Amino acid sequence: MDSKVAERGALENEKETPQEQEQEQVVNPWEVAAKDGGKIDYDKLIDKFGCQRLDPSLIDRVERLTSRRAHVFLRRGVFFAHRDFNEILDAYERGEKFYLYTGRGPSSEALHLGHLIPFMFTQYLQEAFKVPLVIQLTDDEKFLWKNLTVEESRRLARENAKDIIACGFDIRRTFIFSDFDYVGGAFYRNMVEISKRVTCNQVVGIFGFIGEDHIGKYSFPPVQAAPSFPSSFPHLFSGKDNLRCLIPCAIDQDPYFRMTRDVAPRIGYHKPALIESLFFPALQGETGKMSASDPNSAIYVTDSEKVIKNKINKYAFSGGQDSIEKHRQLGANLEVDIPIKYLSFFLEDDAELEHTKKEYGSGRMLTGEVKQRLIEVLTKLVERHRRARAAVTDELVDAFMAVRPLPNMFN
Amino acid sequence: MDSKVAERGALENEKETPQEQEQEQVVNPWEVAAKDGGKIDYDKLIDKFGCQRLDPSLIDRVERLTSRRAHVFLRRGVFFAHRDFNEILDAYERGEKFYLYTGRGPSSEALHLGHLIPFMFTQYLQEAFKVPLVIQLTDDEKFLWKNLTVEESRRLARENAKDIIACGFDIRRTFIFSDFDYVGGAFYRNMVEISKRVTCNQVVGIFGFIGEDHIGKYSFPPVQAAPSFPSSFPHLFSGKDNLRCLIPCAIDQDPYFRMTRDVAPRIGYHKPALIESLFFPALQGETGKMSASDPNSAIYVTDSEKVIKNKINKYAFSGGQDSIEKHRQLGANLEVDIPIKYLSFFLEDDAELEHTKKEYGSGRMLTGEVKQRLIEVLTKLVERHRRARAAVTDELVDAFMAVRPLPNMFN
Repeated sequence: MDSKVAERGALENEKETPQEQEQEQVVNPWEVAAKDGGKIDYDKLIDKFGCQRLDPSLIDRVERLTSRRAHVFLRRGVFFAHRDFNEILDAYERGEKFYLYTGRGPSSEALHLGHLIPFMFTQYLQEAFKVPLVIQLTDDEKFLWKNLTVEESRRLARENAKDIIACGFDIRRTFIFSDFDYVGGAFYRNMVEISKRVTCNQVVGIFGFIGEDHIGKYSFPPVQAAPSFPSSFPHLFSGKDNLRCLIPCAIDQDPYFRMTRDVAPRIGYHKPALIESLFFPALQGETGKMSASDPNSAIYVTDSEKVIKNKINKYAFSGGQDSIEKHRQLGANLEVDIPIKYLSFFLEDDAELEHTKKEYGSGRMLTGEVKQRLIEVLTKLVERHRRARAAVTDELVDAFMAVRPLPNMFN
Repeated sequence: MDSKVAERGALENEKETPQEQEQEQVVNPWEVAAKDGGKIDYDKLIDKFGCQRLDPSLIDRVERLTSRRAHVFLRRGVFFAHRDFNEILDAYERGEKFYLYTGRGPSSEALHLGHLIPFMFTQYLQEAFKVPLVIQLTDDEKFLWKNLTVEESRRLARENAKDIIACGFDIRRTFIFSDFDYVGGAFYRNMVEISKRVTCNQVVGIFGFIGEDHIGKYSFPPVQAAPSFPSSFPHLFSGKDNLRCLIPCAIDQDPYFRMTRDVAPRIGYHKPALIESLFFPALQGETGKMSASDPNSAIYVTDSEKVIKNKINKYAFSGGQDSIEKHRQLGANLEVDIPIKYLSFFLEDDAELEHTKKEYGSGRMLTGEVKQRLIEVLTKLVERHRRARAAVTDELVDAFMAVRPLPNMFN
């Protein structure tokens, strides 16, 4: 591992961390693990990755520029880090538009709440800034990393597209694509342009690939990088090579875009800007991301009201005390309490959230009451999503995924 | 290098050669160098690569099956090695068809005679067996390996397509494509299927890539492998996944197809068969391939009669003796004589060739006379090519490169 660090080319802002630090926590697109089963140290992560913390003045600026309240994920620090987001706002203020790019690796049938977060936030950004959006479904990545056939990966991509569309994206501004279907032409040419400018040692350093890994892994990073450049979408951005790109994503995707930002100016494009989120915690506690292999670690958008109720009551880690007497006396530990964490993601009402935290933290409110409120909030959210998804026809998926111009995408 | 050999997975028939042998001669898609500036040892190459020598009984069989004289390149051992060519003939005899696949990396404006050889031979195979053909122009490869822009590589691909079409291919049976234009969809899906089944260590072992090489190189071998599988061309071979593929190429391309043959059965296809040629020698002598950086090392299809005459008279290495007296006495050394080599590639008349060799070898014929005959033969060949190329319009290139079904390709 040491030799990998020594060999790799240094990318922008990336700090070479000593070995003992690297063993503390692991965050990359395929693994998120805190030190000794503890919590992810996001300050350390920002420091290691070399991105910036999203400070309140930027959020104020977003509110001013969009003339609306900032999204709850911004106000509550769910999206907490960025790269050049200020430059996107500078450009926007000058009257320049940008485009949004986000994506999903379609490895499972049903999405959980953590999967929805980037899409809910991106939908807000699209609506607030009135900008076009490209959504990449990396069915090729999932085929390469998981035990899936090409056909199964493509099928999951379409199924996931329905959940994504259900988040309320504007079809006049949104292009959704599957790599297995869309890679080619201008997009492929950009992949090759990028590939020529990243060495094997670099991807080994950035992603931790080893010699026994198949070359599909080594080939993939340029596929995720290419949508950062407007020329990958000639039907949308022909003649707009100067258009900036903003990528909302969870912070585990940062390595891809560190690589992309290193290449961008060398092939004549702006570096893509990033706005990056925390990981959504598992029901069992905030020690990493949720595990697809344990359905009880997360609330899925397909869970019934009964299942949601059962999961939260049974599995949601409580910061409350062991006995009512002790709880009334000491109050709940909000730092580790999952119902409060989940409410802070999904309860819109700031006043109610503050009140709940105060009452619960002081012991006047019990875990059962907080869980009951969370069950209501999530049931409503999941019900709304289910209804929206049921309305997504195959024809609508085709329409979002059609390679077509979007004449009104900037209006 | 030793560790690379130890690390890589063993591919079919490939013999692990001890280090001292590997230093003797280097033959890979980017370098052909004989031992100590001597001649390529093709027997050793066959042994190392693990392919088979094309024996006379196979040539007889080709003549029987096609009811015509074998091509001069077969009769004279220019195509001298193969993999499973006998199985192609078995299948053909049973009434099964196959398709041909060959290609070119478009790195230069003008082709030389060595470049024409696989196309002249492939044209013969297409005509004799009445089978479809796909021709891959690896403009992506040349962009990745050379100092060319994407646009320049694509332009060269189209220019080279004109020379290829001029070799007389049947438009009803031929699909020519540029990777930068055609990669995508089913073709990309096959690239990814292949990539998943080849490790980094394997491409390091097969192609000699190093850590400082860019990942474009690591990504490319599946691009050259994919045309070996009929499903990469759904507009041609939809529903014909069982169709066999025969690849005529120079033997330096063998590493790509060793890799491909290793993967083929694991993804449900026949291994592609190969028929492989010697390298066409440089004017200065048979020590490797011609050098693009020295225009006087080769005859180009753009050379005028005067240039051809001058190049042959001035640079073609002669096996004749220093003085006429000595020559009359000892005769020419035909083993090293380039005019005789070139005539054995391009002089159709077997009787005349035998006569010339006999007369020249015995000293009754002088180098000047042999060179004069070669000048006539090549001038005629180049003139014919130039006329044919001049007749290739941009519309005809578009027609050959159109992604279209070929309903009569097997008739």
